[in-house]
Amino acid sequence: MGINDAGYLHSARSRNDQVVTDLKLWLKKSTIEIDSLLLKLIKSLIKISEKNIFSIMPGFTHLKNAQPISLAHYFLSNVEMFKRDRFRFSSNMKSLNQNPLGAGAFSGTSFNIDRWYTTKKLKFEEPTNNSLDTVSDRDFVLDFLYSSSICSMHISRIAEELIIWNSDQFKFISLKDNIVTGSSIMPQKKNPDTLEFLRGKTGSIFGNLFSMLTIVKGLPISYFKDLQDDKDLVFRSFDNLKNCLIIFDEVINGVIVNKKVMLDAAKIGFTTATDFADALVKNMNFSFREAYLLTAKVVNFAEKKNLALNEIGHEDLKRIVPKISPEVMKNLDLRNSVNSKKSYGGTSFENIKKMIRKHKKEIK
Amino acid sequence: MGINDAGYLHSARSRNDQVVTDLKLWLKKSTIEIDSLLLKLIKSLIKISEKNIFSIMPGFTHLKNAQPISLAHYFLSNVEMFKRDRFRFSSNMKSLNQNPLGAGAFSGTSFNIDRWYTTKKLKFEEPTNNSLDTVSDRDFVLDFLYSSSICSMHISRIAEELIIWNSDQFKFISLKDNIVTGSSIMPQKKNPDTLEFLRGKTGSIFGNLFSMLTIVKGLPISYFKDLQDDKDLVFRSFDNLKNCLIIFDEVINGVIVNKKVMLDAAKIGFTTATDFADALVKNMNFSFREAYLLTAKVVNFAEKKNLALNEIGHEDLKRIVPKISPEVMKNLDLRNSVNSKKSYGGTSFENIKKMIRKHKKEIK
Amino acid sequence: MGINDAGYLHSARSRNDQVVTDLKLWLKKSTIEIDSLLLKLIKSLIKISEKNIFSIMPGFTHLKNAQPISLAHYFLSNVEMFKRDRFRFSSNMKSLNQNPLGAGAFSGTSFNIDRWYTTKKLKFEEPTNNSLDTVSDRDFVLDFLYSSSICSMHISRIAEELIIWNSDQFKFISLKDNIVTGSSIMPQKKNPDTLEFLRGKTGSIFGNLFSMLTIVKGLPISYFKDLQDDKDLVFRSFDNLKNCLIIFDEVINGVIVNKKVMLDAAKIGFTTATDFADALVKNMNFSFREAYLLTAKVVNFAEKKNLALNEIGHEDLKRIVPKISPEVMKNLDLRNSVNSKKSYGGTSFENIKKMIRKHKKEIK
Amino acid sequence: MGINDAGYLHSARSRNDQVVTDLKLWLKKSTIEIDSLLLKLIKSLIKISEKNIFSIMPGFTHLKNAQPISLAHYFLSNVEMFKRDRFRFSSNMKSLNQNPLGAGAFSGTSFNIDRWYTTKKLKFEEPTNNSLDTVSDRDFVLDFLYSSSICSMHISRIAEELIIWNSDQFKFISLKDNIVTGSSIMPQKKNPDTLEFLRGKTGSIFGNLFSMLTIVKGLPISYFKDLQDDKDLVFRSFDNLKNCLIIFDEVINGVIVNKKVMLDAAKIGFTTATDFADALVKNMNFSFREAYLLTAKVVNFAEKKNLALNEIGHEDLKRIVPKISPEVMKNLDLRNSVNSKKSYGGTSFENIKKMIRKHKKEIK
Repeated sequence: MGINDAGYLHSARSRNDQVVTDLKLWLKKSTIEIDSLLLKLIKSLIKISEKNIFSIMPGFTHLKNAQPISLAHYFLSNVEMFKRDRFRFSSNMKSLNQNPLGAGAFSGTSFNIDRWYTTKKLKFEEPTNNSLDTVSDRDFVLDFLYSSSICSMHISRIAEELIIWNSDQFKFISLKDNIVTGSSIMPQKKNPDTLEFLRGKTGSIFGNLFSMLTIVKGLPISYFKDLQDDKDLVFRSFDNLKNCLIIFDEVINGVIVNKKVMLDAAKIGFTTATDFADALVKNMNFSFREAYLLTAKVVNFAEKKNLALNEIGHEDLKRIVPKISPEVMKNLDLRNSVNSKKSYGGTSFENIKKMIRKHKKEIK
Repeated sequence: MGINDAGYLHSARSRNDQVVTDLKLWLKKSTIEIDSLLLKLIKSLIKISEKNIFSIMPGFTHLKNAQPISLAHYFLSNVEMFKRDRFRFSSNMKSLNQNPLGAGAFSGTSFNIDRWYTTKKLKFEEPTNNSLDTVSDRDFVLDFLYSSSICSMHISRIAEELIIWNSDQFKFISLKDNIVTGSSIMPQKKNPDTLEFLRGKTGSIFGNLFSMLTIVKGLPISYFKDLQDDKDLVFRSFDNLKNCLIIFDEVINGVIVNKKVMLDAAKIGFTTATDFADALVKNMNFSFREAYLLTAKVVNFAEKKNLALNEIGHEDLKRIVPKISPEVMKNLDLRNSVNSKKSYGGTSFENIKKMIRKHKKEIK
Repeated sequence: MGINDAGYLHSARSRNDQVVTDLKLWLKKSTIEIDSLLLKLIKSLIKISEKNIFSIMPGFTHLKNAQPISLAHYFLSNVEMFKRDRFRFSSNMKSLNQNPLGAGAFSGTSFNIDRWYTTKKLKFEEPTNNSLDTVSDRDFVLDFLYSSSICSMHISRIAEELIIWNSDQFKFISLKDNIVTGSSIMPQKKNPDTLEFLRGKTGSIFGNLFSMLTIVKGLPISYFKDLQDDKDLVFRSFDNLKNCLIIFDEVINGVIVNKKVMLDAAKIGFTTATDFADALVKNMNFSFREAYLLTAKVVNFAEKKNLALNEIGHEDLKRIVPKISPEVMKNLDLRNSVNSKKSYGGTSFENIKKMIRKHKKEIK
Repeated sequence: MGINDAGYLHSARSRNDQVVTDLKLWLKKSTIEIDSLLLKLIKSLIKISEKNIFSIMPGFTHLKNAQPISLAHYFLSNVEMFKRDRFRFSSNMKSLNQNPLGAGAFSGTSFNIDRWYTTKKLKFEEPTNNSLDTVSDRDFVLDFLYSSSICSMHISRIAEELIIWNSDQFKFISLKDNIVTGSSIMPQKKNPDTLEFLRGKTGSIFGNLFSMLTIVKGLPISYFKDLQDDKDLVFRSFDNLKNCLIIFDEVINGVIVNKKVMLDAAKIGFTTATDFADALVKNMNFSFREAYLLTAKVVNFAEKKNLALNEIGHEDLKRIVPKISPEVMKNLDLRNSVNSKKSYGGTSFENIKKMIRKHKKEIK
């Protein structure tokens, strides 16, 4: 071609398709970075799970002791959350891999360009299909802001839980010195500021999503200057999420589990009562109604005598449930209770070990 | 087993895993329903595109006339938006296909159940991996609320555009009687209430997403009563989105294009000036800087003489661009301008026809 | 007292009450700054109103021509919006004038301090009533973020309108060169980027409100590190709103009204039909039903003959409305129609003049 | 006048000013209803405060024990929150008291009406100033949705706190049977579902605010159909807030304080250490630095010996702080610590009594 080089630099391009191209390239790179941080976090969660397979804690509903579970089961629930995040971010790659370059201002270009060539060079997968949509679309920005919101919400939920566990009343965990702030006057006081920082950032990340939804909502199809705020929102959500993932990984590695406190706490609230009732059904052919009534009697007895369920004597139990089988009695014990939940996905020790193996295989 | 039937009904189940199961089943069904409405809408958009391949309109940036495009190119940009919606909803199915049943209250169950059996019976794909996560997770609710938000935002953007096109000043389109409301006193007055209805509903659908994000954000991992609002939010977003999709499909089928008004409008604002400059570069070896300066002179001349660009006489053009080639002059014509954008995804008539064929093939 | 000075600096204080004090002082100053920018903007709106008392434009419902109004009436509607903003910001001062200093970490202080003394010194009005609430409360932050959201939403609505008015199809206004961006190739093209900037910033300001609501929502009563993001959110909303107010004031002063285009547009769509019907009721004792039917006939006649309503000949009108009075015919004229709306708050020229006087008096 | 009655019914009115009038009247009534529920709640909070002036609890920062306070001080902090809500709702009345009727479709009316007459009849305070703004403005809707959001956020924060206090690990409070749900099998299990319900509703109320902000943001000045969703949003926020206030009042009246548990908890974490340091400064002329170092030694000693601070013997204390005065030692006692915070707004018993009297006087 006879076109001079400087001129050629400007041909077949527009600010409109270029800003989208730049932002997509940046988001691809950032999505991959987030994914590797998620993977690192998942590994830390698997590590702490492995160490706590036999650490028994009271599982909660409504923040009230309900049934005993393995602490590993708790951290493995977190793994599931972050696995979903990985999937969500990876689904976003489909759009991010569509090359905007060549859409021009919005109508395409009359220059004889090969969009598959730039697609290949810039490591996209295919060119976008419609030039007008290309400069107008910010779905891929929203997808990133949304995926970041969900991911930070996950961190926030776990941070909320750890803050409660770290209170002087729960004392389930302590936190290593690098993730707490102290007080000059009270050397024993260790504030979980880091966890609160994580929880707070979620608010900011949510706000960015809502900002972008509001901005895009009112616009006809094409490029408008309103859209230029997309970068500020995306950069701030990315910075926040990246920091949160790095810090949260340190938190997980800095959790000190007070196993005895957890175990003692699990004894409170008659957390094995349901298992006892289930055992009456399974092993002694009681109907559920009968089993419930008998269990209520056992719990009432324990409450009056100020005993944990597994501390009730055999004779006392027999007065309430005549001919009670040893198999049923076993279910009053915390460890047996945890281990009885052998259904797939349940908290039994065997399940947990298998699940850890499964996760390790997947992330290899 | 010796367990009586009524008792068996309650075994190995909890309200906590059951509400999640019910909601997932409902969402699977609803997602499929939304998808089929999206498909119907895409077909209508393809239909109106086919009818308007050669309808020329002024493409806008900043709501100012910029370059001429085919109206079909506009509606095909909408197709891309709704195709992304289909992909987004389909990605949600991965989570929706994980069977919660058997997670019990949160720790699993000691009953000897086969979660793959219920998975198959209820048409899920696999059981969830972690019972605690299962009762705690509402990501799948958020994914639905988010996908609905994006989809309704798409409808809102197009509705915004059509409202502007329907104004007495644009008059690009009219709307069939079934989608406007009249006035008893002014029979000619047709208010696009329907489009405003669509635009307004987006606000409600956004709100539901943020309600749910707020609700989930503060919760530790487990079941809490706060979560019970999920159903109300999801039902309302679904109802709204479903109605919007049905109504919007009627709108698209009820658009009457005022082709002459559009074409006349495309002549205003010297919309082919960029093409003219590009042609000077491509056909006469001018640098971009030179081409821009020459085009500015041509535009100034046309403005002074109150002419459209293609109405300038050959002699007058030659005074500005000596030895101007006929190939370059062709580019001042709207139709030629539209047809010159032959880059993949551009607005040329040939491209549009190909793209319509491609879409038709895909949705078969 | 024998306390050394350096020690005294730390007594009776805590970071918790100090950060609240600092933020309240900053917000007081910033609220006053916003208020003075609002006042400046209101003055500009009054000025443009004064210049356009007799500029007639088509008033819209549903973006369709409906009834003619004075352009001054439009800008005076904006004055009402910003007057409400001033009231909203001023209501926030009540909380901002409550002095947090002396609340200590959250329980008060055992030092014998006089909180009325610091209240006076720091120009607060009264000390806060409860030390725990003092360090926990961020309502005053939310009030600022909310008031900023409403104010920027007002700017966004007017910007949206001006963008439409600035389109090549409306051409109601042009914008002075300092508030548009041009194109090197098309000297006549003036993009209203500034207005789009204003519209976009609203999204960011909304997001900050939602961020803070989310952050505060989950916290028990006391100080938590989550709260530290309040400053970043408030600073960004303030910066954005301040810029928007300054820029929007320039926009209002940079609007060039194309009076003839507006007037001509007002003739389209039979905008005086309602006035004609009203006149039939008032002056000729028709019932509303009868008046409506007669007006519909007149409108149909005009439409068929391609006439504006006031262009219909007396004889033709008499054929539809026998014995039509001159008083009724006057109502077909745009100017008379505008001037007939003499009810308080209506668009009659006399009303507008009075309202301008009223506003001028108030802001003195 | 010769106008027939049926006709007259329609004159000088429009759907546009009527819907605003209806909504304002409804909101005035509803705002008053909310205010009376807030007043009722404040009375309940004063009542529970009166009963708990001498109930000592550990005050928290970061959910860690920090300093002892009176439980009454906690509930009086809640009073301040709801007082601010009353002020916020009352500020909204200014706009609600501006009568929209007579604005017509948007331009006013040519009928000779007296807007002060309907203002008086409908118990408004003044007519609105600008007919266009009147039909376009929804600030008063947003103000209600915002005030409701803040109020429900207050309830949510307190609910969050009470849920934590109600856990088996805190046991600070129990809840009366009417506000908990039990379990058939575990009669002792009482779930605070009601508190979770309150917390969850805040999410819904937030969402409605953002729905309305989104809806209004994109609209030019005038009436648009998008606005019709305002009623649904307002009705739902009102219903939710009303229910929350009624239920929360029952919750406050249903709180059973476990005074001994709270008091014992207050001893953990050396919560009087700061008071001890302050006393060293005030009574023994130590610099703050010196006082802090000495206190750290005392705390370390107590920690090693597993003693509460006030259990350390006089001799042991003297070894750390020679010539320690009895005045200083008093500060190690929880009750004395609480009572020492005599600065205005502090937790001293005298302050609390005065503040209760002040509140009682105000609400009379």
